[in-house]
Amino acid sequence: MKIIVDAFGGDNAPGEILRGCAQAQMELGIQLALAGDKDKLLACAKELGLSPQLAQMEILDCKDALTMEDEPSAVLKEKPDSSMAVGLRALAQGRGDAFASAGNSGALVVGATMIAKRIRGVKRVAFAPLLPKSQGFFMLCDGGASVDCRPEMLLQFGLMGSAYMKRVMGIEKPRVGLANVGTEAHKGDELRHQAFELLSQCGDIHFVGNVEARDIPYDACDVVVTDGFTGNMLLKLYEGVAMAVMDKIKGVFTQSLKNKLAAAAVYGDMKQLKKSMDYNEYGGAPIIGAAKPVFKIHGSAKASTVKNALRLTRDYAQSGFVEQIAQAVAPGKAAGGDQQ
Amino acid sequence: MKIIVDAFGGDNAPGEILRGCAQAQMELGIQLALAGDKDKLLACAKELGLSPQLAQMEILDCKDALTMEDEPSAVLKEKPDSSMAVGLRALAQGRGDAFASAGNSGALVVGATMIAKRIRGVKRVAFAPLLPKSQGFFMLCDGGASVDCRPEMLLQFGLMGSAYMKRVMGIEKPRVGLANVGTEAHKGDELRHQAFELLSQCGDIHFVGNVEARDIPYDACDVVVTDGFTGNMLLKLYEGVAMAVMDKIKGVFTQSLKNKLAAAAVYGDMKQLKKSMDYNEYGGAPIIGAAKPVFKIHGSAKASTVKNALRLTRDYAQSGFVEQIAQAVAPGKAAGGDQQ
Repeated sequence: MKIIVDAFGGDNAPGEILRGCAQAQMELGIQLALAGDKDKLLACAKELGLSPQLAQMEILDCKDALTMEDEPSAVLKEKPDSSMAVGLRALAQGRGDAFASAGNSGALVVGATMIAKRIRGVKRVAFAPLLPKSQGFFMLCDGGASVDCRPEMLLQFGLMGSAYMKRVMGIEKPRVGLANVGTEAHKGDELRHQAFELLSQCGDIHFVGNVEARDIPYDACDVVVTDGFTGNMLLKLYEGVAMAVMDKIKGVFTQSLKNKLAAAAVYGDMKQLKKSMDYNEYGGAPIIGAAKPVFKIHGSAKASTVKNALRLTRDYAQSGFVEQIAQAVAPGKAAGGDQQ
Repeated sequence: MKIIVDAFGGDNAPGEILRGCAQAQMELGIQLALAGDKDKLLACAKELGLSPQLAQMEILDCKDALTMEDEPSAVLKEKPDSSMAVGLRALAQGRGDAFASAGNSGALVVGATMIAKRIRGVKRVAFAPLLPKSQGFFMLCDGGASVDCRPEMLLQFGLMGSAYMKRVMGIEKPRVGLANVGTEAHKGDELRHQAFELLSQCGDIHFVGNVEARDIPYDACDVVVTDGFTGNMLLKLYEGVAMAVMDKIKGVFTQSLKNKLAAAAVYGDMKQLKKSMDYNEYGGAPIIGAAKPVFKIHGSAKASTVKNALRLTRDYAQSGFVEQIAQAVAPGKAAGGDQQ
């Protein structure tokens, strides 16, 4: 098992990426190939005292890197020598089993689609983050890869999300819900009506019907299916509201000496709570539907999150997910694969 | 100023509605007309010791009432003698200056559109709740009245939201933002591209561009413009996440004696915080774009929320909002009024 890692993607690259890779290499029993500027990597490893660890990793030397300001298409056009582009091409060529990057999400979606390519029959890849709910976590599918979706894409998101949750996350019978403005079958817009029909008729998933946004944090289902526009709004609002509430609570805990003392008493438990709500715990988001496993590490990831993400990337690559989806959506099969 | 109130709408009707009306009548200097079953109202008032207060209100006697299970169209078809339908018809006939109901939201939107009618030139009414943000509150427009929207509708939502926030809520120069998946002008789907253009060109509002969902709780703008599908998802997720986080905190505060003592110390401040996040504080949501003021009171409203809602309904009716919008969108005017 060899994972190719974009050493120059994310807010804390290359230092935290390198540290996370060193931990992963030791703890997870995986081989690593780092895409990025070799000279800079050697210097960084030396500074961090990780030269022996880096020596065990392959380096895919390249001089360029994408930034958050680059257009998604830059991975194909303006910056073919960027660490992300080089890593994805190496993946496509079979020089590794999976690719992980904490860099520009839009570019990673474009690169997964155009360089790693989609599974034959898959209409769109999905960006599929795991988010905390009252018990455990759920997958949001799609969280922003495709802003304009057709009903058969939503069906595929359901199929892929379900397969991922089962094979990679170990959930026995994932409940798939369609994010909608009401629970009744006729609710929502034309896209939702048609997607509801398709999902209802699909025998390969456990479809629980429409789910309202209010119920999503309360364990409405394990896979929330939605178009990428709505999904991205949900993803970012989820994060924004949780942060805003926690900020307000922090405000309460610091506004007086009495409150500070109270805060000290519950400090450990509050920290635990914050951790349970932190989607960094899940390391990032798989990009599903690509013909090879591609994993988005959180942009702000530090070493331990990078390591968690690489563990999930390994699980993704080992799961047989890609093969299962390829079979399920192969042209001619039911799951919309013949309607390309 | 006479406000017509649906006495049989909402989870706590008619008791809490009647109590709220009695308070409003006394404190706000408004006249009230209650739509609903006269016999039941008299009995309820007697039980609550509010017979003298009810005696000062007009009663629009009718025997039926809508439930949350009724289809929105029931206000027109199956239940023309419901308290909501009777109240809306009285409004349309000029027997009151505004109408408020805590009943079925979908039915209220249909009734506002078909019975109170839209302002001439307004393409769709909007359900426009006020939600808390880090400082104060913002308006979500549309929060679920129209799941399928065209760009010119989003322009009108911006115009109407801005006018409401200025005239009714007293915000000097409301910042209008378009909810989108990124801040750059080219982000989002076709609807967003076209709406961005229209909003940018509109001289009557202070358009601040696209706003990401993550920034909405952090004072990104005063009016969040979006289609009703996305708006409803945002509204309900906002509520769901805030509740889920508060539930988790409650869990921390009750899990041990030490934590319970800490909770006691911060109790008052936490209560204050919860209040600042409670959208019940704003009493409900105006339905804007109707030719007469229609106000949705929260379904779970108790007396004090009903009173708050009636104060806002009064402010809405007194504000000159309807006249301003009628002028702004009159057929032939710039704001999309000529593209019916």
